[in-house]
Order: sequence, then structure tokens, then C-alpha cells
Amino acid sequence: MKELTSFVSGTWISGKGKPAELVNPATEEVLATTSTEGIDFGAALAFAREKGGRALRAMTFAQRGEMLRAMSRAIHGKRDELLSLAIANGGNTRSDAKFDVDGAIGTLAAYADLAPELGDTHVLVDGDGVQLGRGARLFGQHVYLPREGVAVHVNAFNFPAWGLAEKAATALLAGMPVISKPATSTALVAHRIVEILIEANAMPEGALSLVCGSSGDLLDRLGGQDVVAFTGSSITAAKLRAGQSVVRDATKMNVEADSLNAAILGPDADEGSEVMNLFVGDVVREMTQKTGQKCTAIRRIYVPASRVAAVVELLRERLAAVKVGDPAREEITMGPVSTAQQLRDVREGIAKLESCAKVVLGGAKPIADKGFFVAPTLLQGDGPKPNDAVHTHEVFGPVATVMPYGSNEELVALVAAGGGGLVTSIYADDKDFVRRMVLALAPFHGRLVLGSSKVAGQSLPPGMALPQLVHGGPGRAGGGEELGGRRGMTFYMQRTALQGDRALLEAIAGKK
Amino acid sequence: MKELTSFVSGTWISGKGKPAELVNPATEEVLATTSTEGIDFGAALAFAREKGGRALRAMTFAQRGEMLRAMSRAIHGKRDELLSLAIANGGNTRSDAKFDVDGAIGTLAAYADLAPELGDTHVLVDGDGVQLGRGARLFGQHVYLPREGVAVHVNAFNFPAWGLAEKAATALLAGMPVISKPATSTALVAHRIVEILIEANAMPEGALSLVCGSSGDLLDRLGGQDVVAFTGSSITAAKLRAGQSVVRDATKMNVEADSLNAAILGPDADEGSEVMNLFVGDVVREMTQKTGQKCTAIRRIYVPASRVAAVVELLRERLAAVKVGDPAREEITMGPVSTAQQLRDVREGIAKLESCAKVVLGGAKPIADKGFFVAPTLLQGDGPKPNDAVHTHEVFGPVATVMPYGSNEELVALVAAGGGGLVTSIYADDKDFVRRMVLALAPFHGRLVLGSSKVAGQSLPPGMALPQLVHGGPGRAGGGEELGGRRGMTFYMQRTALQGDRALLEAIAGKK
Repeated sequence: MKELTSFVSGTWISGKGKPAELVNPATEEVLATTSTEGIDFGAALAFAREKGGRALRAMTFAQRGEMLRAMSRAIHGKRDELLSLAIANGGNTRSDAKFDVDGAIGTLAAYADLAPELGDTHVLVDGDGVQLGRGARLFGQHVYLPREGVAVHVNAFNFPAWGLAEKAATALLAGMPVISKPATSTALVAHRIVEILIEANAMPEGALSLVCGSSGDLLDRLGGQDVVAFTGSSITAAKLRAGQSVVRDATKMNVEADSLNAAILGPDADEGSEVMNLFVGDVVREMTQKTGQKCTAIRRIYVPASRVAAVVELLRERLAAVKVGDPAREEITMGPVSTAQQLRDVREGIAKLESCAKVVLGGAKPIADKGFFVAPTLLQGDGPKPNDAVHTHEVFGPVATVMPYGSNEELVALVAAGGGGLVTSIYADDKDFVRRMVLALAPFHGRLVLGSSKVAGQSLPPGMALPQLVHGGPGRAGGGEELGGRRGMTFYMQRTALQGDRALLEAIAGKK
Repeated sequence: MKELTSFVSGTWISGKGKPAELVNPATEEVLATTSTEGIDFGAALAFAREKGGRALRAMTFAQRGEMLRAMSRAIHGKRDELLSLAIANGGNTRSDAKFDVDGAIGTLAAYADLAPELGDTHVLVDGDGVQLGRGARLFGQHVYLPREGVAVHVNAFNFPAWGLAEKAATALLAGMPVISKPATSTALVAHRIVEILIEANAMPEGALSLVCGSSGDLLDRLGGQDVVAFTGSSITAAKLRAGQSVVRDATKMNVEADSLNAAILGPDADEGSEVMNLFVGDVVREMTQKTGQKCTAIRRIYVPASRVAAVVELLRERLAAVKVGDPAREEITMGPVSTAQQLRDVREGIAKLESCAKVVLGGAKPIADKGFFVAPTLLQGDGPKPNDAVHTHEVFGPVATVMPYGSNEELVALVAAGGGGLVTSIYADDKDFVRRMVLALAPFHGRLVLGSSKVAGQSLPPGMALPQLVHGGPGRAGGGEELGGRRGMTFYMQRTALQGDRALLEAIAGKK
């Protein structure tokens, strides 16, 4: 039995006490155990702040970019091993595992690519300076410098590789040391990634720590220069927001939580059109990839009333072809959900959705004796109201609901009833319809994907968070922002207005 | 006796029950009473969101700028009346009152000036777009649109005019309706300003509401599209951060709280030099303007050990000339603090500081039979440690402490011990010293003011928050950001990444 250790204060360390178990969700075999009891988180924080923070701040953006490049390459060098671990511990198909691991490699590389344009310097300049007085000499200039604390990253079980890497890439390029806490249930991949990075000597000492298991009193020990970035459920997010460091010391917190992402088929999309095909392909992929366990997966499908029957038929046909089973077998196209608890939650969630929609494929019933399997489940709702479960409850599995819409105003009100989401996708060639939807729905979303025949051949799926674009959303989605190139870095930095002699400010900001 | 009303749901309304009293802090005469008991805050929010939000979002940035211009002019037209109210209700000298009221007029005008460059459009474009795929067609573009909720502004007692106006200017230009809650004790000025603006018909209906007195259940009724901007104590800030809307619904919150702002005299500043004169002038002004009741006032004065005696002597001489009394009298240069509670807090605060420093001028002892008066109080500490009161407790009155420093590292550690501040000012011509200080202190501050002989003739005081530069600070200072031109507007807007056909995105973003 493998025992996972944590990497803190520059060393691998085991916890004491009763360990948590990590299982293969297809076979329920126990793969590893881990505990963090007895680990000195105060010392871990001090080590990261002092050793890691100091070392990172001494590096320029360009040097930090080289570090990210080395990290990306080290992970790429062990890609096959990581894919196998993801298949065993995550219930991932090989394709799911690639989405996670290649996402990690790619995001680290994208932030490495961003570094040269930030320069061989330590100061990130924010916009142009501004003359403050009547004379030309008195000037203001905003700059960003890294916060002098630790970035604690609390990641979700669904993306052990990408979650670790996308948050770490942003923080490390900004110049903040990271303590990363993967979800315990699927921590094998994250643990191996940190082993690989430490073996490769890719980062300075203290720049990256790993906590495998409970975070104990780690979060209560944070202060005003530290930050927390959390991905997970809105219930856990609410607990963390009420934590004493956040409330009392203004520890910055970024949250990415539940999201009832929508897909909208425009009134102009005919059956058999490129736009309709793009729409159906995206919905099926988003429902089944990672067994629907993506915060960006499509949960609500809005279709013109006259097209509901046709769309349900197309989706039912495609979803019926999905092969559910142990993803270690090559012919399987959808694995189990990740844990026994997730399976219970998905089944209860389907029952909730049935209060306002009916199952047209799949459903909550067991489909295997062993393993956390659930069938791809499509529901159809004829007129759910804004407060109904389909607009308020995220079912984190291969489950989505098709609903009709009438007027544009009604459609906007229904999508907005989700209370804030990560991404909604709009499939239409009618520019006026798309423009109206964008202006009305943007305040409720972090990202809007516009699928049209012009981009049908090269479109990227809505469920894929891109390093160039912000990932996050308001309200229910947590109110956070990650990625988006340098936008995501500013969470890890303090913006400071400098006010004084123009020549002096420009010298400090590296503008001359 | 004047009874203050609140302006909600498009009408002036009185509360029931036992009212709070507003007094003249120099004479303790009761000037007015107010209550909000029985006001339907649910209806007030709905009215602001539906009427105000809809009207503002229908306006372009240019049109909102014209609205701000009309607001600025309307207030300017009643300037003298407002100054008299501030003198009576705020304990302000005429100069203090101008700082507040002219700050309001100027900040509204500055945001009106900003509007034309944002354009005759509804979409705020965020940076350049980015090519996402191999082909040139698939593109990403970030845009900002106004949040579709209400901005609740909870202001501090010290700036009833500027506090209302600077927050409202930013929110209204962004396109969000405002419910403004001034501190009850000094609400006369804010109340009159809103009366003036309503009489002038400067804003569309629902765009600006006013709550004079307790906010009741207003804050618990907010949701994921609403925001709260708070200025006040860190204790109240902590309570608001733990509020159910913030914790559960990700209601965005911006806090500006306590700040132990520092002034640093560089090692190269000789007695009689321009830099030394600038330093002494700034310290005296920041200690006594508004009777030291400014979140940006200088609290900690760091001087090279060899210059402490000389600096204390210069400050003592200047502070001894301050005339304390009823600011209705023309010869008075410093009024009382604003409330009996403030006076108690300042006296207790001076006692706390005496645990690590000694009083060299003034002190906590009463100096008048009536009115909330306290003497300008200078303390000298010979070696306070980072955890001592001078670095951890804000005394919100005309009180500051002179301390020596040795090495640069020691100086940085002491300033940083303040736990995050709004502004620190550095007085030196030695460019290398200034550069080192800026890079080391920026992560702990929202603004750094660099006083040198090059700008001595035109320098703006550190205590003056400027519309062009961000106002806020990390940690103890609340972790917020206001103003800074369009930077402050983004709090009131949702940033959304649009992903799709380049030509379509550029049409929506108004780039072609």
C-alpha cells in the first residue's frame, strides 16, 4: 500500500493518526493512504514565505518564465506515467486524463511564453503614468509587486494535474510561493507531479509545497500578505470565506465554485447546419468528458420550443452510444464518477431535477455492482421556473436538461436564474441575436463562447478553460477570476500607486 | 429640531421608533435626529435595481459622464451652505470643510472628464484581443459590463461629502445604481447633498438612494450581482465580511479600513533643506487637518536616529502654534473630534501608545469643559518593537509618534509591521534609497508618495486621495481599491471573456 507524503519545509513528511484512503473508483480498490496529522503548518508557512518568497522575488519575470518552462518539460517527460495514475485514481478515460495532464503542461508553457513580454525586471507596470499637477514633473504611475506571503491553493478532485499547474503557473510567475492542496481522493497525480518537479530541481527551495490530506490549521494561520485560491463546492467556499484570516486580516481569496453553465441554440440554427452540429457535439462532449465532472460542463440546454423534440432525439442517439465502464479498458468512453460520495450526490441531484423535468435517457438507477458508475442522463423540462432545481442545483456528473425558450427576454431571465456562471455558449449565425445575448448575459458570466459557422471548424469547446482568457464567474460561481494571461497574476500582487517626480518614477518602473 | 429623512424607492421617508441624534461636536448641541426603523429595504433594493440600474445601463459612458458633470455643478452651486453644515456637524474648520466638499465636487468632475475617453458606448473593452487557434479567425476579447445589482456604499463619519461622491462617481460611471449610507453622526452634509442632487434632477430615478441611520437588514438582502463598498474601522469591516450575502452569495465587497500610515525622512535630508521642510509641513498638516481624522493621516514618523531630537523640536514648535477650539470661530485652526465616542477612543489610544512611547506634546488630558476636544499630541518612541501598539493600533485623532531607525532593513521591517497601509511617504533626494524603499514597501501599500526637492514646490500632500490614483491598501487597510480612474470602476462591472469569430467580437466590443 502506497503511503502519500506531504512536501513542506523542503522535505517529504508523513502524517500520523488514521489515514484517508484513495481508491480506484472503477474497482473500489484502495490505491494509497495519506494523513497530515502532526505536520507543523506554521513552520511550513514560514519556510515558504521566507525561503520560497525571497528566492522568487529575486528572480525576474523572464527567469520565472524559464522556471515554468522547466516545470512544463519535467511533467511532459513523465506524461505516460501520469496518464496511468489518472486513469486508476480518477476514473478517467485516457482522453480525460490527457485533458487534465496536457492542460497542466500547456498552461505552464503558456505562462512561460508570457514571461518574456513582462521583461527581465521585477516590477509589473500597470498602464501609462498620469500627470498630477499643473507642471509636467509631478506624476503618478501604478505598479504591481508580488505579495510577500504564501499562495495557498485548494484544488478540486476533478483536475489534480491542471488545477495544480494553472494556479501554480500564475502565482509563481507573479513571484509568490505556493502551498498546493489537492483534493485527497484523487491526490495521486498531484503528488507524483510534485515529486517529478522536485526530482527535476525545477523550482527554488520553498517555492512549491504540497499538502496531501486535511489542511488542518493552515488556513487560520494566514495573514494580510497571503492569499487563498479555492476551487470546489459553494458550500465549502462559504466556510472558507467565513474563516478568521479572510474576515479579520483581509487575506485575499479567489473562489471558483458551482456553475450551471448553459448552452443556447439560436432561433436560426437549422437541423443539419454546421451550427447545429457544433452545438450537439459540444453538448455531448461537455456532458460526458470527465464523466461530467467539470465546473465548466454544460448543465442547461436552451432550445427554441419548436426544436426541442429534434434536439432531444439527436442527443439521445449520441449519448446512447457512450460506453460506460472501467476506463482501463480501451473501448470505454466514459468512466465512473470519482468517489462514492459523488455518486450519492449525483443520484440525489437527478432526483432533485426530476421535480421540474423528466428523464429521457439514463437516470439515477445503479448500472454496476462495483464502482461509482452512473449512466449519461438527459432530462427534458417543459417550463422550469427560475427557482426550480435545474436553475439552482448543480449536479456534478454526466447530467443535463433540455428546455424550451420563447422570447429573448424569457431566455435571458432563465439563464440569469443560474445566479452567475463560469461559461455559457451561444450557437447562432444571427449576429443581432448573438449581440443581444452577449450584452444581456455577460454580467452573469466569466466567459461566453460564441459558436457560429464561421468558426465551426476550429472552435474550442466551452468546457476548456484557456490560459489566455479569464476563468471564473460571479455569484454562485464564486466571484473569482483565474488565468487570462497577466490578469490572473494580479491576484498574487499588490497594485501600488507611486506619486512623485516623473523621472524617478520611470526609473523605478523600468520605463527608461 | 431637524428630522433627517432617507431617500429610497424614489421618495423621502422618515423612520419610526427612537431616533439617533446628530450633534455639533464643538458645542454638544443636538442639530438633528434620524431613524430608519420601518423602512422597507427590500423594496428600496428592488427599486434601485430595476428603475435605477435599467436607466443607467441604457446610458452610454459619455451620457453618464454628463450626469456626473451635472452632479458636480449642482453641489458646487450650494458650496457655502455645505461648508457651514460641515463646520457645525463635523467639527471641521472652514479649510477642513473645503477639503471634504471640494473633494466631492472635484472627484465627480474628474470622473466626468474620464467619460469621453470611454466613449459613446456601453461596453468597456479590456485590453487587446488575442488569437486563440492556429487560424486568425478564432479570437478572444475581454469586456466589462455593469453588474445588474445595487452598489451599497457605507461611508465613514470623517468625509460625508467626499466619501459619498467618490464612491458614487465611480459606480454611476460604471453603470450601477447606488444606495449610500453616510455615518449617522455626521450625516447632515450627505443628506443635504442628496437633497441638492434630487432637486437638480441630476440623475435618473433610482440611480441614487440615501439611508440616514441604521442600515437594518439591507446588507443581508444582497445577492451575487450586488456589491458593498465600506469605509470605516477594521472591526466593523470584519463583521461585514462575515455577513451572509458576502459569505454565501459572493456579494463583492471592497473595504478601506485602518491604516498606520508612515512618513519616512531619508538619511540624506539635512535640516533646512527643501526635503526636510516638505516633510515637516506634511507631517503637521496630516496630524491636524480634520483633527487627524483621516484614514490617510500620518501616524508613524521614522527619522534617522541622529535627527530625532531636531525633528521633534521642529514638530513641537509647529504643533504648539495650532489653535484648538470651536471651528465656527475664524482664528481656530483645529476643531474637535467628531463624537464623544471618538474622543474616548483617542484618549484610550494615546494611553496605549504610551506603553511604547512618551508624550512630548499634548496628551490625553481634557482641554475643554464642553465639546470633544483633544490637543495635538506628539509622542516619541525610542525603539518600539513590531508588535508594540504604535505599529498595531490606529489612534484616529491628531496623534503621531516619532521613532528612530538604523539600517534600511530595520526600517522596512518596522513600516511593514503596520500590517498593510493606505499610504506611506518617503522624503529623500537619494534615488537609490528611494528605489530600495519603494520596492520593499510597495507590497504593503496602496500608494507611496515620494517627496523630493524636484517636486517640493508642487507636491500634493500624502493625505489627499486623488481620483487618478488607487486609494486602498492590503491587510489592515482592508485589502480594497477605490478610484484610480477606470481601475475603480471595474469593481462595479463584470469582466467577461468573449470567445468566437473575430469580426463578431470586434463588432460587439465596438472596435469597428
